[in-house]
Amino acid sequence: MNKKLTIGLVGFGCVGSGLYEVLNKSKLIDAQIKTIVVKDKNKKRPLPEDHFSYDVSDILKDEEINVVVELINDSDAAYEIVRSAFNAGKAVVSANKKLIAEHLDELLNLAKENEVSFLYEGAVAGSIPVLRNLEEYYNNDSLTSIEGITNGTTNYILTRSNHGVDYSTALKEAQELGFAEIDPTLDVDGYDSKYKLVLLLKHAFGLSVPPEEVVNIGIRNVTKHEVAYAREKGYRIKLLSRAEKVKDRVVGFVAPQFVSREHSAFEVNNEFNAVIVEALFSDKQLFIGKGAGSYPTASAVLSDVSALKFDYAYEYRKSEEGKTLTFTKDFFVKIYLGSPFIEAINEIPFYQIDEVYQSEDYAYQTGWVRFSELEQFNFNQRKELSLIVLPEPITSGEQLIKKSKERKFALLETSIV
Amino acid sequence: MNKKLTIGLVGFGCVGSGLYEVLNKSKLIDAQIKTIVVKDKNKKRPLPEDHFSYDVSDILKDEEINVVVELINDSDAAYEIVRSAFNAGKAVVSANKKLIAEHLDELLNLAKENEVSFLYEGAVAGSIPVLRNLEEYYNNDSLTSIEGITNGTTNYILTRSNHGVDYSTALKEAQELGFAEIDPTLDVDGYDSKYKLVLLLKHAFGLSVPPEEVVNIGIRNVTKHEVAYAREKGYRIKLLSRAEKVKDRVVGFVAPQFVSREHSAFEVNNEFNAVIVEALFSDKQLFIGKGAGSYPTASAVLSDVSALKFDYAYEYRKSEEGKTLTFTKDFFVKIYLGSPFIEAINEIPFYQIDEVYQSEDYAYQTGWVRFSELEQFNFNQRKELSLIVLPEPITSGEQLIKKSKERKFALLETSIV
Repeated sequence: MNKKLTIGLVGFGCVGSGLYEVLNKSKLIDAQIKTIVVKDKNKKRPLPEDHFSYDVSDILKDEEINVVVELINDSDAAYEIVRSAFNAGKAVVSANKKLIAEHLDELLNLAKENEVSFLYEGAVAGSIPVLRNLEEYYNNDSLTSIEGITNGTTNYILTRSNHGVDYSTALKEAQELGFAEIDPTLDVDGYDSKYKLVLLLKHAFGLSVPPEEVVNIGIRNVTKHEVAYAREKGYRIKLLSRAEKVKDRVVGFVAPQFVSREHSAFEVNNEFNAVIVEALFSDKQLFIGKGAGSYPTASAVLSDVSALKFDYAYEYRKSEEGKTLTFTKDFFVKIYLGSPFIEAINEIPFYQIDEVYQSEDYAYQTGWVRFSELEQFNFNQRKELSLIVLPEPITSGEQLIKKSKERKFALLETSIV
Repeated sequence: MNKKLTIGLVGFGCVGSGLYEVLNKSKLIDAQIKTIVVKDKNKKRPLPEDHFSYDVSDILKDEEINVVVELINDSDAAYEIVRSAFNAGKAVVSANKKLIAEHLDELLNLAKENEVSFLYEGAVAGSIPVLRNLEEYYNNDSLTSIEGITNGTTNYILTRSNHGVDYSTALKEAQELGFAEIDPTLDVDGYDSKYKLVLLLKHAFGLSVPPEEVVNIGIRNVTKHEVAYAREKGYRIKLLSRAEKVKDRVVGFVAPQFVSREHSAFEVNNEFNAVIVEALFSDKQLFIGKGAGSYPTASAVLSDVSALKFDYAYEYRKSEEGKTLTFTKDFFVKIYLGSPFIEAINEIPFYQIDEVYQSEDYAYQTGWVRFSELEQFNFNQRKELSLIVLPEPITSGEQLIKKSKERKFALLETSIV
């Protein structure tokens, strides 16, 4: 108990350097960063050169180092480093959602074999302690849904969009502020939100879902038309990671969504993240905090490091419940689908159409679609199609299937001509 | 580790019966309520009589029972029960904020002597896991402020007031809904919020502050005039528990406050609670959840019970920092003060007056007052005086003191004639 922590830090970017500062400034934890491994020898850094090493084996071979904090972008390299760290008997703290979403079960097994901890609070929703709360606080409550804004970059862009700034200008702003990468694909196409959702599925429902099983639709195609629609209806557009339990099935997806003023995410703007947990007994809980930035993520990493002093490890107490649950894409959701091209809208099978609109240069349609049938259309690549989920609750859709069978050619009859 | 828990439950009211149900319905925790002690033999109860005992020593003497869950209203009786439980070597879970606020250090010492845990998450902000997060997650971050809506009853009443319902009607509604007691003093005069603030001061700043040291001003005197003022300015009225660190001093008080749309508590309505934590590194965090009701509080109690399986105990890691801090009432705050009687307003010393208003039947004044000078006026007993804190940040007030010395008779000159 309360053991001495000697840290090998891999990566000295935004979060890594934040951690260094936080650890030095905060006197509340007795842990020391002994070695910092970085890749680029020629990059100018804020610390003297003797703080750095360029060879990760300097950390792995150092017996004094008992914690490896992995904070690099390259998830393939991170995979090797984390594996090696476990094999060398070192605990690992990581904030690499892609790595963890893709390899969680394997890495967990390896950590277990080597009797070391693997903590990654910083990987989900920045400074919000959502994993810790799921592990420690909701472990004996039955969760019904978890959803949230888990990506600060897209929330910043959408906040600007909701204020009338067009997508590319907002993206450029986010890049200048350091919120968005030069290649923003992971953020704006919803991959980052998806990786986080995969981790939430594990901790909230005990489900191991490969990321490729989860559909992610991003915000690249949100145009002024969708923003106008939102304003007209009193909505805002938010990119949500959603998971819901319906009996013994769990639905999970990432998509932009119109949220009304009553939705807890409505007022969560700029780079802030939010997580909404609904449970049988504790009812609805909302957590809001900064999801991007050096310090907020570093503080989450630090709290993991601090927990290692007491050999803390996640218990994955929902794993038993997970065995009784199935992840599914077979559910119905009400969407808005906009496009300059009517034919593009007509490609998508609607089971019920509620609203159609057409002007000279734009059309949209709202109604119910079967989510499993959307995947094939690859919305992130279809610049001409804007899909946004509407606020109505998802359903298993028996009614809709029945109705669409009764009304033959219903789609044809009501579709835009 | 993972020991068998056999519970003696004291009290079977709203929360106690909720706990019984939650424990029976949730299959995720292996703990059993063996004995339920209640006071009134004649009360009709939803369980067969053989579940109940009327003598607390049935629990204390039962060696199989290792956890006492104390959920009664009478804090003096609770004090004796909790002490006896510790002396009998049993862990205690309580949701009794008055008891804990008044006797925390003494009870902690006793728990320590007997090597048992004392957990009380349910005592603060219902289902929001604020103590656990302060203990486990913010333990290595430096907190700058913590504030929140910690009382569901008054938030319900104020939500109705903000909608134009007058205070006594709103109180009656709250009583009918089971949110408010027949004697609502503890809630509406801010005592309940104060007890919770005392617990937050302990866990956030390591300070042991006796409740009588903390000023609590309630909502009894909020009239239609204050509601109209709020509407005019785009504010809402909320009863806030506030604690702020300014250098090595910590300010803490309970008072109704005008909050603007930008304030995180603005949209927290009805019986919901909110806690806002500001820290050096993790920045601003907001937690929202249900603060009143059987299940939400019972779920907090259950999560404490569950933590006892692993012999969890609070560590009070801020205690060291607490030794360097002083609790103070000597600060300046901008207030609104309304009354039908001008003389009543003029009794209160303002260091700077910003706004005065007078009509035939009502007057108000806004400006800066020294908080330590307010205590003597006993606002909860002064039905003719409505004090509401304005959104401006509190200050140490050097400027104001200087100014008021320069401007002799300033108050007289500008006060309402």
